[in-house]
Amino acid sequence: MPDPRLDVLCIGNAIVDVIADATDAFLAQEGQVKGAMRLIDGDEAERLYAHMAPARQVSGGSAGNTAAGVAALGGRAGFIGQVAPDQLGEFYRHDLTAAGIEFITPASDVGAPTARSMILVTPDGHRTMNTFLGAAQHLPKQALDEQQIRDSAILYLEGYLWDPETPRYAMVRAIEVARQAGRKVAFTLSDMFCVGRHREGFNQLLDGGRIDILFANQAEVEALAGVAHLESAVAAVAPKVETLVVTRSEDGALAVRGPERADVPAEPIRELVDTTGAGDLFAAGFLLGIARGKSLEQSLRLGAVAAAEVIQHYGARPEADLRALAGDLLA
Amino acid sequence: MPDPRLDVLCIGNAIVDVIADATDAFLAQEGQVKGAMRLIDGDEAERLYAHMAPARQVSGGSAGNTAAGVAALGGRAGFIGQVAPDQLGEFYRHDLTAAGIEFITPASDVGAPTARSMILVTPDGHRTMNTFLGAAQHLPKQALDEQQIRDSAILYLEGYLWDPETPRYAMVRAIEVARQAGRKVAFTLSDMFCVGRHREGFNQLLDGGRIDILFANQAEVEALAGVAHLESAVAAVAPKVETLVVTRSEDGALAVRGPERADVPAEPIRELVDTTGAGDLFAAGFLLGIARGKSLEQSLRLGAVAAAEVIQHYGARPEADLRALAGDLLA
Repeated sequence: MPDPRLDVLCIGNAIVDVIADATDAFLAQEGQVKGAMRLIDGDEAERLYAHMAPARQVSGGSAGNTAAGVAALGGRAGFIGQVAPDQLGEFYRHDLTAAGIEFITPASDVGAPTARSMILVTPDGHRTMNTFLGAAQHLPKQALDEQQIRDSAILYLEGYLWDPETPRYAMVRAIEVARQAGRKVAFTLSDMFCVGRHREGFNQLLDGGRIDILFANQAEVEALAGVAHLESAVAAVAPKVETLVVTRSEDGALAVRGPERADVPAEPIRELVDTTGAGDLFAAGFLLGIARGKSLEQSLRLGAVAAAEVIQHYGARPEADLRALAGDLLA
Repeated sequence: MPDPRLDVLCIGNAIVDVIADATDAFLAQEGQVKGAMRLIDGDEAERLYAHMAPARQVSGGSAGNTAAGVAALGGRAGFIGQVAPDQLGEFYRHDLTAAGIEFITPASDVGAPTARSMILVTPDGHRTMNTFLGAAQHLPKQALDEQQIRDSAILYLEGYLWDPETPRYAMVRAIEVARQAGRKVAFTLSDMFCVGRHREGFNQLLDGGRIDILFANQAEVEALAGVAHLESAVAAVAPKVETLVVTRSEDGALAVRGPERADVPAEPIRELVDTTGAGDLFAAGFLLGIARGKSLEQSLRLGAVAAAEVIQHYGARPEADLRALAGDLLA
């Protein structure tokens, strides 16, 4: 097996985040569930946008954020996702490329604009997402560069991609290619509602032994296992993968790999501003640690450092020098 | 003269800011003058963008920022400017409308996209702007709603609009309409390079008695007067207008109105993040004060409060509750 050219190759929805402040009353009036991601169509996107406060636009998407985190830590990252040939798509491509991420999936004029997620940030720093998938839901498996997949130490996929049918086939094909090349496959359950929508499909993936590294937060792993108890859920899910990582917000994170287990606390922060991207950046740190041969505990700590940085400002991509923050952990 | 429906109606370039961090070395390598605004064409915009760091997009434009400041202070604000029927134009319109600003200038398909300004923010918090005017330079005088102008206590215009020829005619017409209706006309010199480009035209406007309230920073008023000395420049320019306002960054601001003069210090800040919008927000506070019959000193202090808020975060539009920050000043 040749040395990998990339550390982590991420596949996900290419989404521009449209971030605005909102009150709890506004969420209630809109019938939105705080902290959740819901999929909306173009009409609903327009209606909601008309009621939203002035917004800032930053590139996002769970897997895209993870790729940005890997790059900010000094890793070699790639991204696969579908944008349209429009202003938002150009913006998305610029931000990945400028961050040093390899992004070669061509734009495609499928009659839908580049995806956007309207993110409502409440005064408690939590974000509630309304995603119009647009072009992202049309990522065809033909858009995969299979050599790029074979060249990457870890292929990382987001559960959100399971929602629309076309990218689901692309994901399944990408997993096949990575496994045949002897590479690691990592997967995030994305959110508990996503698990609710696709529990059966996700369990088939896991039971088929196609996932090496699984990321979940507490709610997601409990939803997957069908038990409202962390340790029971961990015990049920861990045997299905080589490595299970569970993030627990301010309670830290844990990882189980066969008989091995590590627990780390959350990194201290000065101020919680916006939790968008916390899980994505945790995955970035952990995956780069693993790709670089670090221990389970070191990899978790890398994840915690990257997550702590991103929740202290608006937006889901790192702004500070993550490599410096990681210090000895990546030396 | 009927009571005005709007406090301040702003005319300016409708520009989306594309903001990224940059090093001093990058500015030097690009041959850019720190703190300046330069106009670039579409090709140069693409070239520069390809070399810029990942960016955030927020609505900007000097006069648009001022309108947002007036609205955030609880004033009734309007905006006139030209966007294209594209994603950036929709974003721009949303942000003004969501801030409660009346923006009824229709989008126009003039073959150029909505304007964008690539703003490079150096570690010292200063911003260097590269503006591609696109659709904004095609604002025709036919796009003015003359009743809206007659309905506004103050018409506020940015010097930047003098750069392209078409909006210049629109500005001149707007000034005529405002004066005929007995409204106040306010004008900002925008930046010292803008003064350099249009010193003669600006002096004609002033000598013709068409400007009631003039905004300038120290460099601009000195450039206009042609003397490198603040008090001499103030003495030369003040007689040409009813009210002259000069902002001096951390040294505060002053205003001269006939025999009357007021000086105020800058408001204290915790941290300088990004000076973009400081002058625009100063103008917002001052103009709303004047529109509401406040004293020269109170109006200057309102300007200082609004400017202090905007330089403590990225972006040129207020994020905090300016009305609360203004407190008794607007009571």
